[in-house]
Amino acid sequence: MNLEMEHVLPQDIERRSMEIIAQELGDRRLDDANADVIKRVIHTTADFDYADTLCFSPSAVEKARAALQRGADIVTDTQMAKAGINKQRLGNLGGQVHCFMSDEDVANAAKEQGTTRAVASMDKALSLQKPLIFAIGNAPTALIRLYEHIQEGRIRPELVIGVPVGFVNVVYAKELIMQADVPFIVARGRKGGSNVAAAIVNALLYGMGKR
Amino acid sequence: MNLEMEHVLPQDIERRSMEIIAQELGDRRLDDANADVIKRVIHTTADFDYADTLCFSPSAVEKARAALQRGADIVTDTQMAKAGINKQRLGNLGGQVHCFMSDEDVANAAKEQGTTRAVASMDKALSLQKPLIFAIGNAPTALIRLYEHIQEGRIRPELVIGVPVGFVNVVYAKELIMQADVPFIVARGRKGGSNVAAAIVNALLYGMGKR
Repeated sequence: MNLEMEHVLPQDIERRSMEIIAQELGDRRLDDANADVIKRVIHTTADFDYADTLCFSPSAVEKARAALQRGADIVTDTQMAKAGINKQRLGNLGGQVHCFMSDEDVANAAKEQGTTRAVASMDKALSLQKPLIFAIGNAPTALIRLYEHIQEGRIRPELVIGVPVGFVNVVYAKELIMQADVPFIVARGRKGGSNVAAAIVNALLYGMGKR
Repeated sequence: MNLEMEHVLPQDIERRSMEIIAQELGDRRLDDANADVIKRVIHTTADFDYADTLCFSPSAVEKARAALQRGADIVTDTQMAKAGINKQRLGNLGGQVHCFMSDEDVANAAKEQGTTRAVASMDKALSLQKPLIFAIGNAPTALIRLYEHIQEGRIRPELVIGVPVGFVNVVYAKELIMQADVPFIVARGRKGGSNVAAAIVNALLYGMGKR
């Protein structure tokens, strides 16, 4: 490991990082359609495990970009993911980010029903009348609730980004959502997080600029 | 891996997660003083690497908690870390979180000086007249600039949380800050992130409640 400082201009840091990532991936072939997303997640986490764990339903990236082009909104389960998503780029396409986790009605509903605020947030999202992309970076309960809503025909997301992190029902929730009949991007296993959720949304947005 | 759903009440999910983490750490002995922080970072990332990579200067946790008790503010280099820090808990102690990354004067200063906004943010932090904890989760350039300010006697942080993530100068910046004569918590290597920075601040805050 090089402990000299590498002199890279501010505007070149990201390009240089992506070069290093490509180099270290070596002979490893990423699916062209998904490479943007996988590389940006590795860029965000410095964790090459994601080259193995990220799972994509057929044409997930293409379908998601088409939805963003039509002005899809993002619904997320954490304020951190909301903070990390490029809201200007999304806004230029007519979309916005919703996070209901801190809403008073959500807190009350969760308390009354003895459930998590993440579950109550997913219930609240049913009222949104736009194409929706869900970016779940924290709560497996959100993903499980979303699965129920999809299966019972109450909602039809354009994409579900299923990347909660943790130890209780996280693996279960991710495997479950991959059985729903909607496009998905899921980080199999325990790893993920709000940073990963935001990185995936941003990779979708930035990739649109290139086309 | 268990693919049945585990039935855990919402209020018990964190406790159950911490049990699983303790179980999987097994015989691995964590330093008592640092265990709160290490376990919360693993909880946030599901990445046990942090049990090896997190480095603490002597009494870093104790000194940081004493500073928080005196109303120390947090300065961070990302809006995501700011979003993730428990601002209510911090506010109860008299502290607040600053992130200057989106400030217009910072953008202008960075442009004029051909540097990063992270560097200009660290310069702006020099004007704060309170005990300060820096939580750097993204930009190695912020950490390098902070090192210069410390070495030249312009600032004396109560704690530097050095957990930027990435590929360009990240390892260098972390090794450098550990040579400054200030308390630190650093995630050695490439990994880290704004989620890790926020988790460390929150672990410091939550641990105070217990005492």
